[in-house]
Amino acid sequence: MTQTLTRFLYGGDYNPNQWPEDTWTKDIKVFKQADLNSATINIFSWALLEPEEGKYDFSKLDKIIAELSEVNFDIVLGTSTAAMPAWMFKKYPDVARVDYQGRRHVFGQRHNFCPNSKNYQRLAGELVEKLAERYSNNPHIVVWHVNNEYGGNCYCENCQNAFREWLKNKYQTLDNLNHAWNMNVWSHTIYHWDEIVVPNELGDAWGPEGTETIVAGMSIDYLRFQSESLQNLFKLEKRIIKKYDPETPVTTNFHSLPNKMIDYQKWAKDQDIISYDSYPTYDAPAYKPAFLYDLMRSLKHQPFILMESAPSQVNWQPYSPLKRPGQMVATELQAVAHGADTVQFFQLKQAVGGSEKFHSAVIAHSQRTDTRVFKELTALGKKLKKAGPTILGSKTNAKVGIIFDWSNFWSYEFVDGISQDMNYVESILDYYRKFYERNILTDIISVDDDFSKYDLLVAPVLYMVKPGLGEKINDYVKQGGNFVTTYMSGMVNETDNVYLGGYPGPLKDVTGIWVEESDAVVPGHKTTVSLNGQTYNAGFICDLIHSGDAKVLAKYANEFYAGTPAITENEYGQGKTWYVGTRLDHQGLTQLFNHIVLSTGVKSLVGDSHKLEVTKRVTQDGKKLYFVLNMSNEERELPTEFNNYPNLLTGELAQVKMRAWDVQVLVK
Amino acid sequence: MTQTLTRFLYGGDYNPNQWPEDTWTKDIKVFKQADLNSATINIFSWALLEPEEGKYDFSKLDKIIAELSEVNFDIVLGTSTAAMPAWMFKKYPDVARVDYQGRRHVFGQRHNFCPNSKNYQRLAGELVEKLAERYSNNPHIVVWHVNNEYGGNCYCENCQNAFREWLKNKYQTLDNLNHAWNMNVWSHTIYHWDEIVVPNELGDAWGPEGTETIVAGMSIDYLRFQSESLQNLFKLEKRIIKKYDPETPVTTNFHSLPNKMIDYQKWAKDQDIISYDSYPTYDAPAYKPAFLYDLMRSLKHQPFILMESAPSQVNWQPYSPLKRPGQMVATELQAVAHGADTVQFFQLKQAVGGSEKFHSAVIAHSQRTDTRVFKELTALGKKLKKAGPTILGSKTNAKVGIIFDWSNFWSYEFVDGISQDMNYVESILDYYRKFYERNILTDIISVDDDFSKYDLLVAPVLYMVKPGLGEKINDYVKQGGNFVTTYMSGMVNETDNVYLGGYPGPLKDVTGIWVEESDAVVPGHKTTVSLNGQTYNAGFICDLIHSGDAKVLAKYANEFYAGTPAITENEYGQGKTWYVGTRLDHQGLTQLFNHIVLSTGVKSLVGDSHKLEVTKRVTQDGKKLYFVLNMSNEERELPTEFNNYPNLLTGELAQVKMRAWDVQVLVK
Amino acid sequence: MTQTLTRFLYGGDYNPNQWPEDTWTKDIKVFKQADLNSATINIFSWALLEPEEGKYDFSKLDKIIAELSEVNFDIVLGTSTAAMPAWMFKKYPDVARVDYQGRRHVFGQRHNFCPNSKNYQRLAGELVEKLAERYSNNPHIVVWHVNNEYGGNCYCENCQNAFREWLKNKYQTLDNLNHAWNMNVWSHTIYHWDEIVVPNELGDAWGPEGTETIVAGMSIDYLRFQSESLQNLFKLEKRIIKKYDPETPVTTNFHSLPNKMIDYQKWAKDQDIISYDSYPTYDAPAYKPAFLYDLMRSLKHQPFILMESAPSQVNWQPYSPLKRPGQMVATELQAVAHGADTVQFFQLKQAVGGSEKFHSAVIAHSQRTDTRVFKELTALGKKLKKAGPTILGSKTNAKVGIIFDWSNFWSYEFVDGISQDMNYVESILDYYRKFYERNILTDIISVDDDFSKYDLLVAPVLYMVKPGLGEKINDYVKQGGNFVTTYMSGMVNETDNVYLGGYPGPLKDVTGIWVEESDAVVPGHKTTVSLNGQTYNAGFICDLIHSGDAKVLAKYANEFYAGTPAITENEYGQGKTWYVGTRLDHQGLTQLFNHIVLSTGVKSLVGDSHKLEVTKRVTQDGKKLYFVLNMSNEERELPTEFNNYPNLLTGELAQVKMRAWDVQVLVK
Repeated sequence: MTQTLTRFLYGGDYNPNQWPEDTWTKDIKVFKQADLNSATINIFSWALLEPEEGKYDFSKLDKIIAELSEVNFDIVLGTSTAAMPAWMFKKYPDVARVDYQGRRHVFGQRHNFCPNSKNYQRLAGELVEKLAERYSNNPHIVVWHVNNEYGGNCYCENCQNAFREWLKNKYQTLDNLNHAWNMNVWSHTIYHWDEIVVPNELGDAWGPEGTETIVAGMSIDYLRFQSESLQNLFKLEKRIIKKYDPETPVTTNFHSLPNKMIDYQKWAKDQDIISYDSYPTYDAPAYKPAFLYDLMRSLKHQPFILMESAPSQVNWQPYSPLKRPGQMVATELQAVAHGADTVQFFQLKQAVGGSEKFHSAVIAHSQRTDTRVFKELTALGKKLKKAGPTILGSKTNAKVGIIFDWSNFWSYEFVDGISQDMNYVESILDYYRKFYERNILTDIISVDDDFSKYDLLVAPVLYMVKPGLGEKINDYVKQGGNFVTTYMSGMVNETDNVYLGGYPGPLKDVTGIWVEESDAVVPGHKTTVSLNGQTYNAGFICDLIHSGDAKVLAKYANEFYAGTPAITENEYGQGKTWYVGTRLDHQGLTQLFNHIVLSTGVKSLVGDSHKLEVTKRVTQDGKKLYFVLNMSNEERELPTEFNNYPNLLTGELAQVKMRAWDVQVLVK
Repeated sequence: MTQTLTRFLYGGDYNPNQWPEDTWTKDIKVFKQADLNSATINIFSWALLEPEEGKYDFSKLDKIIAELSEVNFDIVLGTSTAAMPAWMFKKYPDVARVDYQGRRHVFGQRHNFCPNSKNYQRLAGELVEKLAERYSNNPHIVVWHVNNEYGGNCYCENCQNAFREWLKNKYQTLDNLNHAWNMNVWSHTIYHWDEIVVPNELGDAWGPEGTETIVAGMSIDYLRFQSESLQNLFKLEKRIIKKYDPETPVTTNFHSLPNKMIDYQKWAKDQDIISYDSYPTYDAPAYKPAFLYDLMRSLKHQPFILMESAPSQVNWQPYSPLKRPGQMVATELQAVAHGADTVQFFQLKQAVGGSEKFHSAVIAHSQRTDTRVFKELTALGKKLKKAGPTILGSKTNAKVGIIFDWSNFWSYEFVDGISQDMNYVESILDYYRKFYERNILTDIISVDDDFSKYDLLVAPVLYMVKPGLGEKINDYVKQGGNFVTTYMSGMVNETDNVYLGGYPGPLKDVTGIWVEESDAVVPGHKTTVSLNGQTYNAGFICDLIHSGDAKVLAKYANEFYAGTPAITENEYGQGKTWYVGTRLDHQGLTQLFNHIVLSTGVKSLVGDSHKLEVTKRVTQDGKKLYFVLNMSNEERELPTEFNNYPNLLTGELAQVKMRAWDVQVLVK
Repeated sequence: MTQTLTRFLYGGDYNPNQWPEDTWTKDIKVFKQADLNSATINIFSWALLEPEEGKYDFSKLDKIIAELSEVNFDIVLGTSTAAMPAWMFKKYPDVARVDYQGRRHVFGQRHNFCPNSKNYQRLAGELVEKLAERYSNNPHIVVWHVNNEYGGNCYCENCQNAFREWLKNKYQTLDNLNHAWNMNVWSHTIYHWDEIVVPNELGDAWGPEGTETIVAGMSIDYLRFQSESLQNLFKLEKRIIKKYDPETPVTTNFHSLPNKMIDYQKWAKDQDIISYDSYPTYDAPAYKPAFLYDLMRSLKHQPFILMESAPSQVNWQPYSPLKRPGQMVATELQAVAHGADTVQFFQLKQAVGGSEKFHSAVIAHSQRTDTRVFKELTALGKKLKKAGPTILGSKTNAKVGIIFDWSNFWSYEFVDGISQDMNYVESILDYYRKFYERNILTDIISVDDDFSKYDLLVAPVLYMVKPGLGEKINDYVKQGGNFVTTYMSGMVNETDNVYLGGYPGPLKDVTGIWVEESDAVVPGHKTTVSLNGQTYNAGFICDLIHSGDAKVLAKYANEFYAGTPAITENEYGQGKTWYVGTRLDHQGLTQLFNHIVLSTGVKSLVGDSHKLEVTKRVTQDGKKLYFVLNMSNEERELPTEFNNYPNLLTGELAQVKMRAWDVQVLVK
């Protein structure tokens, strides 16, 4: 069940429990001054709510909720289970995570519970039960926020036992398991379930930093198992909340770039609504957060909650510059442009202590409102008040799907081979960027998504191809789909065993080629590729391709394989497949996509965007909202086709000159 | 009680216990050939003195002391408690330190005792009792040298228990503690004293290397506690010695650049005389050791002991070049110029084994005296014999005080925020250098020192301002003092909680400004500042300043805050305060101090020093000793105002041409 | 006893146990297509052979051996003891290694047994007994391959106890031990054997990465002890095999560049024949593998087995490029040129899983034979079939010996002193290269080898000189030998205690010089040396030399020691000694060796090799085989003196133009 919001939220994390009660009213007055309408509370209050086991104290939380309700704020209510009180570590040491080196954590930090600790599960469940029971009737609670930024693997004995059960369930017999993990290599054959040892720096770790693995099949299964274990915690809390409050949407906030420890796609079905904490680093190109927003929206093909973001600087980057004038408004609206139905900050009030005390906030340490940042927050509040109701619930219709798959994320970066520069996200971004720059809407989808609605399906480094996926892609192309894939694709099955008979294994048919060898480009060398009479640099990996009947679009221009195919195009059924055998540089890949986009008939939103970012959302009643964003520090010009469109944010007509970081939402 | 030396010592660490007895007499003959008059002994002899618990053997030490006494050497007598015998680790494992990862050390190394081990305390006390009892009557013992280079934190259970007691004593109630450490953040609230866990890689560690901390208040208190714990060990030994020998000064040798684990200023009151081991790295600019000597001298505002230094190369740097001809003499006399009343080496005789066997010595492995180094040592001996008696006990009168504060050292480098380049010592050195290059005498003082004797008080990055310090600075300036402070000042109280109402908190009045935001300069970018019509580079942090009534001395010249104040000057009572909102480059800061020095009337020792280092010490009977040092590899010219002064080192008139590394001590 | 092969082997590691039985026959057919004649099997099958303790299952291995025997393959039979089954870790945790941090390994990986575990020893012995008993009569087994790539130190309690016994045996008394390790430094004196603690990150570790050591004597003894402990494992297995099969040679495969954990020279006497796994990194200059092959050949002064090498790319380098066309043939024949009597690959068939699945193989994942690599393998097979019988058993006669000594390897890199750039192998390679480039045959020998057969003996950085070695060198030179040594030589005895009286200690006589000081060249500086009127760069260390009666060949040209000797030449008895006091650059060292080679009359194999590598092997019946290798990517020209020689690989006359990577074996 997907549930939605009834109001476009403008708010964020608020921790009145860190402050004297007599400051709360004043705080809320300031929030209202900036047109905020929502607060996220109770994220880290367990120690206050339950000072000793079974003894609860909700007096402070009652007051906070009352005060916010009174001013008609929408409340996002946390369950507080992400940071355990000190007494819990003392009384039940097994609640704490054991790290990859086998060391158990002690009191401190946060996000360090063992997902398979029965004590943790029981205690978290009891707390959530009390919360749900107490507050489920409050209509101001619009979202339940379970835990916080799940992530972090545990390697304890409880997890080891649970892993063995999980494996029994998955593989049924040890023969199946030994075969799946190819355990005859290096004498790893297992004869009893209790011989299985969790991945561990002192076990099957490998590589200079111990982050690679001898038995990739096992390590990937462990990541699947841990992601599921955490997901079970989420489901446990959700189940309890739903008993008391079946209507209000329940979520937990996803995070990171993206989070490698959690398979968002597997989790998505259990989330009523997706929520996301967005903290792009200062040097991230604008297409990177755009990609992540598209990923979030595509998880349920629904608008999502922007649960956290920074009003100005963060505190935790190596260097945390201020957001430039206008930049905050632009970065928040970029999320909305890609599908967010809220703008929420961490944090509404800057803490005086703790490691995040220099993270920016709506109310800063100066506690003044005559500041640059507060003025920008107020201006944004005004715009959202105007535009929010229209935007709320509007949809994005992309005709391009890019595959992002957690099993690939995991397995690809475990590869002990041919080049150390295996980076899954960067490989996907290479291709995402080609559509971003053309203002072509894209979904970032899973291998289990329905491909048929896309005119073009792009699957870079689709290293791991699980059973059925090859056939599914074949069918998609046969029926007229267009498919792009690359080097390091079609290589292994779901437990990391190589497909024999030539790469790209199950994708040989659809690509029409086979790869005999893959060269690793070494530092200081450049391989070149000739495409359409131009020469481009290529790097990382160069596949030596037998092109068969496929058409050769580009050839290598140097090395001993000069003149052999680098990029091919294959007609297959009603559709076409492109195979890109090397990591082309930016210019080369742009050139290639000039051709592919033309071939497939996929359309840009505007003819020439003048380096502006443009997206489109369509409202329930069919209004087309064009988000036009200047994600730069320089003035840009609006594409002429938008002249005279009304700007939803201002109620006025579109401005032709767009200042640095300016955003317009133009309605058609 | 401060006690002083009766003779200018020239000697160093001597380990005859590593050598056959029949070599000792010959060694001493060589020492006398170089005019040495002192030896430091018994630093690491515990295993020889106490081969099993309670069974002592002083026969060898008796002989060594007898032999040195016979030739009238001044003896610096170590207590040998810094390296524990193997049997102690075996019998009492708790004597060994537990590291930040929770791992207990085993036999090996040195300086690895737990300061809160009762066994260590008892065993060390017993040994010292025996030593003090046995040797206290020997008049040749001129200094007791307790332990060696204290430092290194322990994280064991004994320390944890002691820390809890220390906290009870400091905070009285858990409410106070929770408030001081701001424990409502991330659910850290404590309800029982035994829920407190020492800082630990598996607890509240943070940051890529686990060296940052979630609860800075706790981590800073832990550093205070550990420094005190080690200090208590020193006091324990001292108390025992004083029972038997109330007259002879007791010290322990400080070290490092400077040592972050020990609050020298807190320790100073317990030291009869400060002693210091000086090992500048080969690439350290000359002002860095000068700064450290000034710090040592200022701890008690008294001359200090240069307990260790290298005759030529050390062995432990990444690269340990030879000291160039003359360089050793210059570097030793630099210490004297800044307040040392001794010249002592590690080591008098080069060991054949152990990790320091390639560290230079008076008697090298060649065991020859016809060597370059030995000749230089002999020449220095001759000079010190002549000049030592006059120099001994002479004082330094500085009119500039620079604040160096251990609580700031600790807290500043824990800051999880806005830039990773937080380096307390480098920040202080930026400012020290401005005075060094002008030959203006400076004291390096604590926040508890008397400010009133200084014409100018400089407090860079005074991040942590404890209660009363703001008022103390206000008073100082009101009464005519001149005060300089910078970005990252006045931010937090003594437990790292931010002062609300705008930075620099308690320094807002005296500076007359407030800081709305602080930008972090990211790698590859340069911010510029316009000062007196010139443009200078600035980096690291740029404060966005509201200057109020303060005069704007410099403005930013680029970025979105171009034209806003970067440096301000504020009249306050009878005095003035400068606020420097960014890290100006060397040229810019020099330019700024041209102005400040002129404003304050602080005087250089010479008009133009021709790139020579000049300091001044004043003898008891009022003679002014000008130390003129050529700390370079090139010839330099003596300032003309010194022409015809007598040179105390040679008894001749000043030389106008000063060779590379030449030093003259000119008397007026 | 040295045993030899009866056939030139062409084969490699084959793991049919990872594959369905019905694929084996097809595999072998492919091997034969490439003229392979041998397979190495059973390297990692313990878990299959002994599924639980004492229960064996040889059915699969029986079949494999039968199948290979049937086609007359030579079998290299592994003992499978290098990777322990999972049940063994569970039942006997002490079989697993404890690491330098004191952490015991768990199931996983390979090569992680404790050499002093009685359980491991017993279980390995039992398995080998079964294998030897069962298969010793099979005449197709031509080599027993014990374990695999021994290496890796253990720091467990069993090792600690065994170490104490080893030390008692070596030193007899604690007095001797304390003296040998110079334990009075830092209070390390030991009074009971059980006070000895193994080296350990928490004990005597030192240096930024904990890899240096306080008590080098102890750490070096520990390395000796660990190498011996592993060697005892090898001997244990060998003893059992010999009971059943006294004839067939027994070996274990050496590896690495070279392996620092195993003293190959001490092991060599126990090996019937040396075998080596060769994996030069892609960026290694061609002289580096050449050096390693010369080292392997010199261990027993006999041809060796090239046990493993890569048909094309490896998988484990940071970047693993393909071998270029022809390169595989050249790199394999380079081993033969330097003394190998086999060409063997890892692996004959590419695994579908495990961390080496992307390592190249004879049968690749594509399982096709129409590939570039397979064609080259076939071509090489043809050549070896022709040339192998002639090459087999032919000898190399070198007149230059270069000393490579494991005690020096260990002690030199433990030196805590003057420069961090201590790299033993690189220091030796500097000198090896001078002979390689001149095509002068060299042996790489131990300090225990017979020096008298060499016209020139080269001992770079002979830091550790054990008792008698100085005299042995003196005698060698007195009797007309020529000797070259360098900076950092003659410094310490066999337990790392410095020789007093001036460096180079026991080499002072033969060099005729003494070194007063050694400067460390710091980054960014260049010292220069004047030699034969030319100026060359020097770095790392500069010795300040008293040349006495020795002739000064080169002087420093800058720094304060400009004009003092840098390189000397000393007539001593009938011979000569050169002392090189600094690390000369490549050009300078070449220039120096122009002189030395001329002086000593040592001969190159060819006048001008046109940048080709040339070696010589002499067959039993006196035929001279000149291996001429083009180890480059460019065409080169054959030296004219080889015109019209027959090429053993083709049966045709020598080709004058040599393509990239071409190799000819020319017979005279």
